[in-house]
Parts: sequence; C-alpha cells; structure tokens
Amino acid sequence: MVVILKDQAEQKKVKNLTDWLENQGLSVHKVKGQYQTILGLIGDTSKVDIDLIQGLDIVENVKRISEPYKNANRKFHPDDTVIDINGYKIGGGNFQYFAGPCSVESREQILSIARDVKKAGANILRGGAFKPRTSPYAFQGMRAEGLELLLEAKKETGMPIVTEIMDASHLPLFENVDIIQVGARNMQNFELLKQLGRIDKPIFLKRGLSATLQEFLMSAEYIMAEGNQKVILCERGIRTFETATRNTLDLSAVPMLKEMSHLPVVVDPSHACGIARMVKPMAFAAAACGADGLMIEVHNDPAHALCDGPQALTPERFSEVTAGVEKILAAVREAK
Amino acid sequence: MVVILKDQAEQKKVKNLTDWLENQGLSVHKVKGQYQTILGLIGDTSKVDIDLIQGLDIVENVKRISEPYKNANRKFHPDDTVIDINGYKIGGGNFQYFAGPCSVESREQILSIARDVKKAGANILRGGAFKPRTSPYAFQGMRAEGLELLLEAKKETGMPIVTEIMDASHLPLFENVDIIQVGARNMQNFELLKQLGRIDKPIFLKRGLSATLQEFLMSAEYIMAEGNQKVILCERGIRTFETATRNTLDLSAVPMLKEMSHLPVVVDPSHACGIARMVKPMAFAAAACGADGLMIEVHNDPAHALCDGPQALTPERFSEVTAGVEKILAAVREAK
Amino acid sequence: MVVILKDQAEQKKVKNLTDWLENQGLSVHKVKGQYQTILGLIGDTSKVDIDLIQGLDIVENVKRISEPYKNANRKFHPDDTVIDINGYKIGGGNFQYFAGPCSVESREQILSIARDVKKAGANILRGGAFKPRTSPYAFQGMRAEGLELLLEAKKETGMPIVTEIMDASHLPLFENVDIIQVGARNMQNFELLKQLGRIDKPIFLKRGLSATLQEFLMSAEYIMAEGNQKVILCERGIRTFETATRNTLDLSAVPMLKEMSHLPVVVDPSHACGIARMVKPMAFAAAACGADGLMIEVHNDPAHALCDGPQALTPERFSEVTAGVEKILAAVREAK
Amino acid sequence: MVVILKDQAEQKKVKNLTDWLENQGLSVHKVKGQYQTILGLIGDTSKVDIDLIQGLDIVENVKRISEPYKNANRKFHPDDTVIDINGYKIGGGNFQYFAGPCSVESREQILSIARDVKKAGANILRGGAFKPRTSPYAFQGMRAEGLELLLEAKKETGMPIVTEIMDASHLPLFENVDIIQVGARNMQNFELLKQLGRIDKPIFLKRGLSATLQEFLMSAEYIMAEGNQKVILCERGIRTFETATRNTLDLSAVPMLKEMSHLPVVVDPSHACGIARMVKPMAFAAAACGADGLMIEVHNDPAHALCDGPQALTPERFSEVTAGVEKILAAVREAK
Repeated sequence: MVVILKDQAEQKKVKNLTDWLENQGLSVHKVKGQYQTILGLIGDTSKVDIDLIQGLDIVENVKRISEPYKNANRKFHPDDTVIDINGYKIGGGNFQYFAGPCSVESREQILSIARDVKKAGANILRGGAFKPRTSPYAFQGMRAEGLELLLEAKKETGMPIVTEIMDASHLPLFENVDIIQVGARNMQNFELLKQLGRIDKPIFLKRGLSATLQEFLMSAEYIMAEGNQKVILCERGIRTFETATRNTLDLSAVPMLKEMSHLPVVVDPSHACGIARMVKPMAFAAAACGADGLMIEVHNDPAHALCDGPQALTPERFSEVTAGVEKILAAVREAK
Repeated sequence: MVVILKDQAEQKKVKNLTDWLENQGLSVHKVKGQYQTILGLIGDTSKVDIDLIQGLDIVENVKRISEPYKNANRKFHPDDTVIDINGYKIGGGNFQYFAGPCSVESREQILSIARDVKKAGANILRGGAFKPRTSPYAFQGMRAEGLELLLEAKKETGMPIVTEIMDASHLPLFENVDIIQVGARNMQNFELLKQLGRIDKPIFLKRGLSATLQEFLMSAEYIMAEGNQKVILCERGIRTFETATRNTLDLSAVPMLKEMSHLPVVVDPSHACGIARMVKPMAFAAAACGADGLMIEVHNDPAHALCDGPQALTPERFSEVTAGVEKILAAVREAK
Repeated sequence: MVVILKDQAEQKKVKNLTDWLENQGLSVHKVKGQYQTILGLIGDTSKVDIDLIQGLDIVENVKRISEPYKNANRKFHPDDTVIDINGYKIGGGNFQYFAGPCSVESREQILSIARDVKKAGANILRGGAFKPRTSPYAFQGMRAEGLELLLEAKKETGMPIVTEIMDASHLPLFENVDIIQVGARNMQNFELLKQLGRIDKPIFLKRGLSATLQEFLMSAEYIMAEGNQKVILCERGIRTFETATRNTLDLSAVPMLKEMSHLPVVVDPSHACGIARMVKPMAFAAAACGADGLMIEVHNDPAHALCDGPQALTPERFSEVTAGVEKILAAVREAK
Repeated sequence: MVVILKDQAEQKKVKNLTDWLENQGLSVHKVKGQYQTILGLIGDTSKVDIDLIQGLDIVENVKRISEPYKNANRKFHPDDTVIDINGYKIGGGNFQYFAGPCSVESREQILSIARDVKKAGANILRGGAFKPRTSPYAFQGMRAEGLELLLEAKKETGMPIVTEIMDASHLPLFENVDIIQVGARNMQNFELLKQLGRIDKPIFLKRGLSATLQEFLMSAEYIMAEGNQKVILCERGIRTFETATRNTLDLSAVPMLKEMSHLPVVVDPSHACGIARMVKPMAFAAAACGADGLMIEVHNDPAHALCDGPQALTPERFSEVTAGVEKILAAVREAK
C-alpha cells in the first residue's frame, strides 16, 4: 500500500500515522519529493482500512498495491483449480457446458430439455426454480416445486444440476443440488456468501452488474475464507451506457481473471446480450479467449405456449453452438 | 407497451402473438408503415414478460411505455407520502437529518455522538451494527452487540434509530429499531425486500450502485406490494468511470424521483463522495434541489484512535452543515 | 509516480529501467517487500510515458501520484482565477448567467431573447451558430450567418456573447466573439485546443461525456500551455447507464474541480438533464455547491413555430430561476 | 417514431403537434389507452428533431423506432461492403491485419517493423505520425516527418498504410496515404467527418470511448452522406467503471454492428486492453465472433531504447497471433 501525504503535512500527525501503521505490523518506508512525500507500506495490508487513512487531513491519496484477496489469488496458488462436479471436471483445461431453460416451468418441459441438451453435448443441467425478477408482479419461479422437478430431471438423465439460491434460509431445499448459483444481484449479499462458505458444494458465482474484477474476487474470497474452496466464476455482462445489447459482455475479464485467480471462469452469453442470435458468436469468442465453460439458455418450442424463436436457443441451434465451440477449442489448443 | 415487428414478419406468427396478447386482457392496435409495423398495447401491461416478446423472431424491439410500478407511482398517488418516525415527520415539506457514525464501535462512542448530533440538529440517529464490507477480512461490525448499544443511545437521547439489516433471519433483533435500512448492495435482494414488506416499520432503501431510477422504484414496489407503504428512498451515489470521487452523487435523481414517485427522498453525501470536505457543499446542493432529508456520517475524534480529520465530519463541522442547510431550505421556500 | 515491480523481476531488467528513469532526471527510491518491490520516482514525471513503463514485463503496475497538469493546478496557483468578460467578471466570488437559445434561428428570435434574458438578469448571451449534431440530417445551425446575428444582438444589447467553434479554420469568423465555446464532443480535439491557446480570448470548455476530471483539466492545460490562461470550465453532464435523464449532471465535480484547479466552474443544467422542468432545481443545487455561473437555454415561444412548453425555459421561467439562485447564493454566503 | 402523450394533454395542443408532424410528411396514427395516448408516426422520421418534441409539455416520452442512418444501414444495403485497399480486400469474408508501431519514431524503426509485420502476415502497415495525447507535455508524434517515413516504408515494402488525421487542415499531407484513420476522440468531430466524406479514400473510423453503436454508425453516416462510402468501423474499447483493463473491449459490438450495418468491422485489442499479454486471447475472440480484421500494435525491441516486453507485441509474438487467428478463422468457417 502506498500513502501519498499532502504537501505541508504536519510532522506530528505524520508521526502519529506512521506509529499507528507500525503498530499494525507494517514496515513504513518514507520517500520524500519536492511537493509530496510517499509512505510505502510493506507487510500484510489486507486488514488495513483504506477509507480511514484516505480520510486523514494529512493524506492526499492512498493506493492499494497488493491484492486484498488471498485464497482466490493466483499468486499464492499458481495451479489452476479443477472442480469435480459429480464426475465432470471444470478448470485446468476441462471445458463444460451448463445448459437448460431460464426457468423450470413444468415436468414435461424440464425433462424434455434435459434430454435434449444432454444429447447436444451439455453435461450439466441449469434451470431456475427461484427467480430474481426486477418486478414483484413478474413470475417468481416455481420455487420449491421447481427444485423437485430439477431433481427428477437429474435422476432421469444423470446430469448434475445447477440452480440459483436467493436466501440462506432456503439452503435445506438445496441438499441434493450439485452446484448452487449466486446471481449477479446477490454477488455482494455477504451473509449469504458466508453461509455458502460453510458447505461442501461448488458455488457458481455470477459477477455483479457493476462489480469490478477485484470486487468479484473479493466475493469469491468471502466464500473461500469460510472454508469452501470450490468457486466457479461467471462473467455475464456488465452495465454500461450501451443499449443495443441488454448488458455488455466483458470478455477481457476472462484472460484477466485467469491471470488474477486460479478459479475456473465460465461465460454466460445468453444473459449478457439478451438476444438469442448473438449467443453463437459470443460463445465462440468466449471459447477462443480461454473460458473454462459456457452457460447457455436452451428452450424447447413445443412446451412453450407462445411461438417459435424465443429468447433462448432451441436444442437444435444449441447443438450447432457446442459443435462449433469444440472446433474453436481445438483450434486454440493447436495454436498454443 | 409498443411492439415493433420486423420488416417481413410472417402473418401467421403475428396473429399468434396478437391472440396471445389479447388473451392476457390487452387490446392491440396495429399501425402499419412502409418498413415496420407497430403494435400498440393498451391495458395493464405490468405483468407482461417483455423479455419473452423481445425474443420472438418476428419482433424487432419492444418498448415499455407505462411505468411498471403502481404503489410507488406519483401518477396514482399524487400527494406526497409523509412518514412519521416516532413523532418526527419526513416528506411533504418536512426535512430530517439522519446522523451518526458509520459503525457503532463502543458504548462511549455511540452515546457521545448521539448527544452531539442531537445538539447539532439531527433528530434521527444512524449507526451501523451489521456492516457490509467488500472484504471478508475487514471489520464486520459489532452486530447484535452494536444493536444493543444503539438501543441504549435511543433510550438515553430519545432519538429514533436507523440501522442496516443484512439478512432477513436477523429481523427479530430489529424489533425496537425505528427504521430499517437496506443497503445499496442489497437493493435487489428480493427475498429480503418481501420480508420487509410484511412488517410495519419505515424502510430506508438505498439505491444500488448501478440501479436505474426505475429499478430503484421497482425495489420499493417489492416492499409496498406486500403491504408496507412506508418507504424512504435514498440516493447515495452511482458507479461511473470517474475516480476522483468514490461514487458520483446523482442529484438529478432527486427532482426526477419526486416526479416519478410520492415517496420521500433522502441524500447521503458522505458515502457518495467518500471525502469529508465535500459533504457540506453537496448537502447544500441536495437541500437546494428538493431533498426531504440528509444522511450524514458524524465521527467524534476523541473516541477515535487515530488522529483528527477522519473520513466523517466532526460534530462541530456537522452543526455548520445543518445551520447552512436550514438557510438554503429557507431560501428555496422563499424562491417558490 | 510509483512503479510496482513483479514478484521475481529480473535484476538486470530492473537496473535497465532504473537507469533509464534516472537519465530522465528522476530520482528513484526502491522499497522492497516480501512479494513486491516498489520504485518511488521523485522529480518532474509529467513527461514520463506511463503506458511505456506499464508495458514492461517486469512491471505489475504504475500509478501516477502527482497531477500531470501545472497551469491549471490549484497547488501552484492558490488564488482563484477571475476572468473579465467585457467588464463582467467570473470566478473569485463573481457569479454570472450565460443565457440564450440553443440555436440562433432568426434575427427576430435572437434579438428578442437577448433583450428578455438581459432583463431577467443574464449578462452574457449564448446562442449556437455552428451546431454539432449526432445526425448529418439534422439542422447544422445557421453557421456564419448565425454569427452575424449574434454580433448584431451584442451590438444592440451590449451583452458579450459566447458561441461554439467546431473547427480551427473558422477562427477568423470569431474575431468579435467575446468567449469561444468548445463543445463536449471536441474536448479532446487537441489541434483545436492548441490553436485556441494562441489567442487572447476566454475559452468556455465543456467537459466531455465520458471525461474524468483529470482529463478535463488536461484539456484546459492544452490551452494554457500555449499561453492563453483564460479558461472557464463547464460541467454539462456525463454519460452513465441511467436513462431517465439525458445525461447525469455530476455536481460533485464542482467542489472537486475548485479544489483541483483555480479556474472558474460553470454548470449547464439544460443540456445535462434534457428536461426543462429540471433546470430550476438543478440550477439551485449548482449555486448551492459553489458554481461560479450557470449556462441556461432560454427560448421564446412566439418565435418558435411549434407550441408552448419547449425543451428550453421561457424568459419568464428563466427570471424565476435567476431570482431563486440569487437567494441561494445569499444563503450560501451567509452560511460560511 | 412513437410519441407518448401525457395523461391529460390539452386537445388543442395535441392537434397543433399532429398538424405540425403531418406538415413534415408523416402520417400520424393515434392509439388511445386509459392513462396514455400514443402517436405512431409513419414515414421518414430521420429529420424530425426528437429533442424538440420531447420538450413539449404535453409529451411524456418519445421513442425512435427506425434507425436514423440510411447509407450505413444493412436494411437498405443487405450485402456486405467489400473495400479494396490497393489490392487487399476487407469485408464480405476477407480478413485483414493492420499492424505496426503505435508511433513512428525513426526511419530505422518503421522500416524494420514494416518488414517484420509483412513477414508475419500483415498486409497493411499502421503507424502514428500525428498522435492525440491526453497531456500537452507528452510526445505529439513526428507529424509531417513521420508521414514521410511511413510513405518510405510503403514504397519499400509495398504495403498500404493507415495513419491518423487530427485536423482537416492537414489533409494535403495525406495525399498518398491509403487509409485515413479517425481516432476515438475525434469520432464526433463532425467538421472533420464531412471533409473526409468528400475524398475518395477508405476511412478507418474508431468508436468513441462512450459512443453507443447507433452514434458510431451516425458518425459513419456523416462521411457517407457526403459521398464517400468506404468506411471501416473499428471497435477499440469503451469506458466503464472497470480499472483492471484500460478500457472494456466490447466484442458483442462485432455481431451487433454486422447486423445493423454492411460495413467491415475491425477490432483493436491493443488499445482496448492496454496490456500486451491480453492481445492474443482477445484477437482470437474477435476472430471467433466475426470481425473482418485486427489492428495490432507491434514494436521491435532493438530500435526501442528501453528493454524487452513493451506494451506492444514483438514481431515474433505477433506472428504467433496471426498463425493462431488463421486457425480460429478456419474453425469458424468449418462451424458454419
């Protein structure tokens, strides 16, 4: 950490600050310039309250230099984390497809899609039972009943399932769920993260709509600090001024996260763009820049009351995506 | 709601869509142009799933025209909501100061600040017991013990208290708390919002870091739809590319929210800017553009281990703020 | 400037870098920690290419600590700059209103508005002759002819005029213009800024839609480095994800700019919000947080073909704004 | 275009508006609901001033439905534009590499890199002679002299060259330049765009840091409306809150732009990320999602005073990028 002092900082106050920092086990190196003095802090600064120092009237600026995350940090864990999901591996060169409908709507629907996406190459079934919706008047998911149907689909197809939790009090219902998803809007629901850190299941953590990569990793750190090291990171688009796409898929997050951290990184192009016809090119791009997996919404027409061409891909189009992604992955491997 | 169809949309599919919409009780008006056809939907569109329609292959674009919030909507509730907080009113021309430390740190600290801010003009005491922190290694607040100390301060000074809840399971601890705060990071913790909608206490709802004003009001709507109409909105800065201030205080949200909704609007300049010396000018500005109250962090030096000039204002400087704000409020009243 | 080296940076390369930095007249102080080494650079780092160092494979990060602007920097010029505009002063406690139509449309229109805004308290007349428009098919302004009409209005009313330049080749046309405006879209048109730095007229510089405050001051620095010290800064809204207002007016920029720089700061609430009924509250707020002036669009109905209630304020409503702002300014002076 | 009227809009004013719109050749269809009335406008709305209507006191909202760009619009020009650059084609399935140094620094440097990038697979040489720099104290490029050196490199290697123009008055110097680049900061320098629309050379237009895709295409439209149809679009990163990368590369812009427009789309991963080691993965991703070309900074060590591993790639690493991209392109073709 580097503390930049103001031009004419009172010596007595500088000494107070230096003493206080040294009392916290840090060594303080002073570098004096014409207009500014810099304090370089060496040691474990992860517990230092940066806002507190920033607020001192002798301080012009404070910049954190070492990353405040430890468990999630590639620097301390150079090897890729590989997570085993009921026999299917992700990370360290293992690529996985998480596919299924946005919401579980009926037994027929989920069973039919499960079979279809399995055939098309997906190993893990996704499906929302508890649905976070911006409006209280929108469909909130089938909730406990939806979970039951997902478990039935798991039983029938043998696919592990991933589904979203919205409140720690629902945890007992998730006992047989293979991967628990934390949605973008709950990325900083710290009480929930702590609870998920105390169980022994992979957590699928989605990046918040305006979360920096460092904040994203700090949320992973919340889970890991409690003991659970099985975190899968998911980039799903960030909020920008652009309105042509629902969100802006930040694919540079993929190589950057893989440099900062050893955790697997999955990309969700369906939610990021909000436009089914963009899923294929963005899935290809995600595979090309090093993602460890894809989460894709797949919908089956017949079960769907309305008409063809919905937001999500049909199983047929999804199998075109997986086939293409495999080709891209082979090209990337060859290119190395 | 307006649905823009694609250039050569298949007639059979357009009919399917029109029928489906009419089955939901909407009347559908078709306007045909050279390159595009528009469907104007009249009726209660608040439950229509915009994403579903957007995803249809015959649809180019869907635009919602009427606001999807009802309880929070000024259009249906033209009069200002006035909320009574243990005898202190906010909204409808009543201005309130919410002041106190960021975190409760000790009995001495909270009692001393409570007395000081009361003397300086604040009616409501704020203080964090449960603290949402980006890092799991940072101080997480005194939690239940901190709540006890706040209640003691309330007893001694007679000031109502406002403090943040982080998980619905903590609700029993908040029984004697006067106003329950929902932090920016939990603005879309929908399960928590629902629970808070079922109690009879004012809820102090902070705007999420990247929430649009409509999403902000939809979160208020979550609470109100369950029955609790006592929601206080708080603008506390949004995330932008600017780095000179911690966040960007969006003061145009104040007149805009007051136009969109009848709920009281409070501004928190301390968190928005993250710089104590900017609290005074931004508090003045908030009062000038029509805010119904201010939430301000106040810190007392002696209790504070480090040294003078922290992030928060001292009680002396805070009393300068309240004195100045009163002058601004008088000027605004006179100006009308 | 602080350079953070990578964990196992090769000694030979570190020496190369150190030598290269010292050759540029900087003194380099090395601070060694367990995982990282920091180089503190003391001296004039304003000409050091931060991107070049950032790109070295031994470097983890580079952070600039001292501000790269000199002429615009409050640190080196503690006193407020006061700019004299044909006898009207701005800055250092002098407040000015810049008012007039968005575009000059006819002789009648501009003369009539000029008289009206003068009566309502404005000293400086604004009006666009060259209009930057997103679409090539939109009205591009009356251009040279519009400038002539503005000069006629100046002659008749005695008001100095401010109007936008879009290309340095138009400079000869601006000879009798009192203040030359640089629009948000040209804030980083560096060739234009350099040319404006070589003339002796106040420059009214608008902040770019996504410019940081530091970049904004660097653009002022471009003008000042060429000799022209008369720069007026104008905050006019930044681009965010919010869609309820056209842009987000960043009023915290006002106290922050006044701390960073000695230049006058004007606020333009008309362009920022894009909604006439928000001009009054935001003008009040700007005055309350320390702005040195306001730029406001005023429109006169009769000259306007369409109907009443346009985007801009009418002269009557504008005089309510100035009257109110004067009350706010008095309250702020009293509050100090 | 759709105009949403306010709840109790005065009939006389609505009639005024309707008449005014019809006078502009539009047909107006009224759809009346319980709380709102919608006017659907059919016809060529590209010249209608949306801000003017938005400002009327009877209007709640205006939404543009048809795109205001014509020449750049895929809808009116379904086939891909293919641009011939001295024999090298781009667009319509033809992929090109634009490579070279950020700035021209010396004859030796530019000649050496030109040879190297040609060998590594690039057909078009890039190099900055006029350099837009945030700071007036930073190196502004070799300017006219740099252009001479670029032309020498063109002569020796036979490669067409692309270089940035910063002011229309410099156009005579660009006579023998093959492609003229407009930088992100000048994307809305409308006077420059108009001038470039009157010459017969391909224009390489970079997206502004906070430009929406529609604004980007409107800037292309400025050039095309004057006659020059040879515009190459370049996505180079947008500004967001993220700080780990210099900008956020918006790759979803690639398929979206190709849907909205028929113009070729190039991606510049070097400037977007600002980190040399991210160029390879992001170049792969750009190729995978359908880009028509890549612009990549390549630097040669020996000519470079400092040391190895600069911001830009070395020719060796660049040839790894082109080799890999070719494999990705083959995989994508196969996947279709």
